[in-house]
Amino acid sequence: MTTQAQKAIPLPQVEARVPIPRQNLRVPGPTPVPQQVLDAQAAPLINHRGPEFSAIMKRVTPRLQYFFQTTSPVLTYPASGTGGQECALVNVFSPGDHVVAIIIGNFGTRLAKIATAFGLNVTKIEFAWGEAADPNVVESRLKEISDYRGVLITHNETSTGVTNDVKTLAEIVRRANPDALIVVDAVSSLSSLPLEMDPWDLDVVFTGSQKGWMIPPGIMMIAASERAWEAHKTSKLPRFYWDWSSTRKNLEASWQHPTTPPVSLFYALDEALEMMIAEGREEIFARHVKAGEYVRGRAQAMGLKLLSTDPRYASNTVTAIRTPAGIETKAILKKLREEDQIVLADGQDHMKGKMFRVGHLGYFTQTDLEQAMDAVETRLHELGYQA
Amino acid sequence: MTTQAQKAIPLPQVEARVPIPRQNLRVPGPTPVPQQVLDAQAAPLINHRGPEFSAIMKRVTPRLQYFFQTTSPVLTYPASGTGGQECALVNVFSPGDHVVAIIIGNFGTRLAKIATAFGLNVTKIEFAWGEAADPNVVESRLKEISDYRGVLITHNETSTGVTNDVKTLAEIVRRANPDALIVVDAVSSLSSLPLEMDPWDLDVVFTGSQKGWMIPPGIMMIAASERAWEAHKTSKLPRFYWDWSSTRKNLEASWQHPTTPPVSLFYALDEALEMMIAEGREEIFARHVKAGEYVRGRAQAMGLKLLSTDPRYASNTVTAIRTPAGIETKAILKKLREEDQIVLADGQDHMKGKMFRVGHLGYFTQTDLEQAMDAVETRLHELGYQA
Repeated sequence: MTTQAQKAIPLPQVEARVPIPRQNLRVPGPTPVPQQVLDAQAAPLINHRGPEFSAIMKRVTPRLQYFFQTTSPVLTYPASGTGGQECALVNVFSPGDHVVAIIIGNFGTRLAKIATAFGLNVTKIEFAWGEAADPNVVESRLKEISDYRGVLITHNETSTGVTNDVKTLAEIVRRANPDALIVVDAVSSLSSLPLEMDPWDLDVVFTGSQKGWMIPPGIMMIAASERAWEAHKTSKLPRFYWDWSSTRKNLEASWQHPTTPPVSLFYALDEALEMMIAEGREEIFARHVKAGEYVRGRAQAMGLKLLSTDPRYASNTVTAIRTPAGIETKAILKKLREEDQIVLADGQDHMKGKMFRVGHLGYFTQTDLEQAMDAVETRLHELGYQA
Repeated sequence: MTTQAQKAIPLPQVEARVPIPRQNLRVPGPTPVPQQVLDAQAAPLINHRGPEFSAIMKRVTPRLQYFFQTTSPVLTYPASGTGGQECALVNVFSPGDHVVAIIIGNFGTRLAKIATAFGLNVTKIEFAWGEAADPNVVESRLKEISDYRGVLITHNETSTGVTNDVKTLAEIVRRANPDALIVVDAVSSLSSLPLEMDPWDLDVVFTGSQKGWMIPPGIMMIAASERAWEAHKTSKLPRFYWDWSSTRKNLEASWQHPTTPPVSLFYALDEALEMMIAEGREEIFARHVKAGEYVRGRAQAMGLKLLSTDPRYASNTVTAIRTPAGIETKAILKKLREEDQIVLADGQDHMKGKMFRVGHLGYFTQTDLEQAMDAVETRLHELGYQA
């Protein structure tokens, strides 16, 4: 190894900045943010250990509990949704613990990967991309699997546009193994789709700010049942940043955090929760139902095929559409972005280039969806598509 | 365990929001943010997998490399500074690895705690709060310690207002153990105080957005030397969220991230780096030298005692002042906040209530510091202080 001094790094030449464009952002996160929430971020910074910040947390926390439908404290971290996946696992399990991962797409796969990376023993119950977890299959598979400490479930699979029936799946798990910890990835569902943590007896639920919450990415929210807090006490996976105990202690002692929270994003969250409560939880759900039905209806009316195979499980936050034969996914996405300022998402993993996804969660109007689907129709035909 | 359904959680009553006050925020992070940077956050959201976001990363990354003084990629994560501490350790070490932690205050203690939590074998070289790490002591102690894989050093100890001579300490470590990984916590120093990662042959360096970078909290930045990247290959600590490989791969392939980055904070970082480069790196350093000298000079002129025992190591980003006898720390902080809209920080850990800290890093003017120190003088006298 060298110990020689290196040369100084000169000032780099970079490309000039250009204004951020205003687009019809129809990816499944980051989602568009209302102007008043964007503006809320621009308030001056405050001390995260002062009373002004505590006042925000004191307002935001019970409102998050309301959207989670839990009496457990909702903890918040500076992180992405993937941070929620890691945080959920390292707080309740120990090396070698056996967990069952119910996988229906890319984010279910990721959760299982994290479990494996942390030394858990993972048994997978996998379904093809586009399918939901079939409750009957899960029930019979669980009978063959023994000694599992937890079951990992994706509520809404962002990569396929499929929503699992978490309520039914949780009932099945609870019957099969009353003490199992039910870990639910609700990143792209919570606040947009019905999910009731306590009534459904879920143990760990987490979500991300850039999805249904109408704010930019950067805050991860997570809550744990009494059963999960009990498991936390004896869980031996190494942790510090994600540790629930210190986060809960600071929240309960002073409505604060053990480390520095993303203050400006909490201004946004405070504002967005005000708007969400003004709209109403049921009304938000209804708006998402209508959006899902509209986007799927338009796609099918154009003769396009959805990835989701069963209408009962089609997601009301994101629709995955198979790219029709003869059309390049890249080409349609580029055309929409450059000519219509409409941004859709490509497929992920092995479905990259084979599908595109339309996000319809958080802050959107019916006009946004109409404009997007009109443009998809026009541009596909321009590229030679015939239904 | 019960499996009974829980009652629904009703909409909570919360206290009404009040406007965020404009304060002279003189804590050592979060630091004040220039209006144009605050406003930059309010741009519409974009796709983190699109060309607009890549353009930001393509501009921001080489500029971060310039401030780090490294040719290594600077990786960014949605996280606080503590996330940087954890990220630094889990990427290069394996369970049971022996590391030496040089501790001069609360954040050095925290880094050692994280190392212990992850199963490393930690030997501490501790100095009293207020002291810097004495290079001679470190050199002689290192001769007695064998088989260590890394040395953990705090550049600027936010809890005590002391800056270690990292350049000299790194030379000592390199002489003692050429292959040791030198991990530097530069959270409250980088961009404000001189630090040259490659010329000083440092292996892992990390910082946080809410300190010298003039933006809100929420982005953690970290870089690793070739020696650290080599260690990364065989490091066995469990990791996923913090994994450097996937973050580097996404950065190099497409100027993007493996998970969703805090997009609005990157708008702020892009704007802030523009301002920082317009001001000039050396000029920023000079402004901080002047600030440190001013605040210490004013404190001493009032007859107050600094926690920092040796002027050579007094920090130019934060000054820790012992609360004079007969004065309650809480009372002076409350008075300043409520009557002058000036926010200082209390001491941490065993020094809570025994000192107060004045932050002077990132975005500030000489007038901000004068106003703060004038008010400290006035309010201390009102509380009965006599020099």
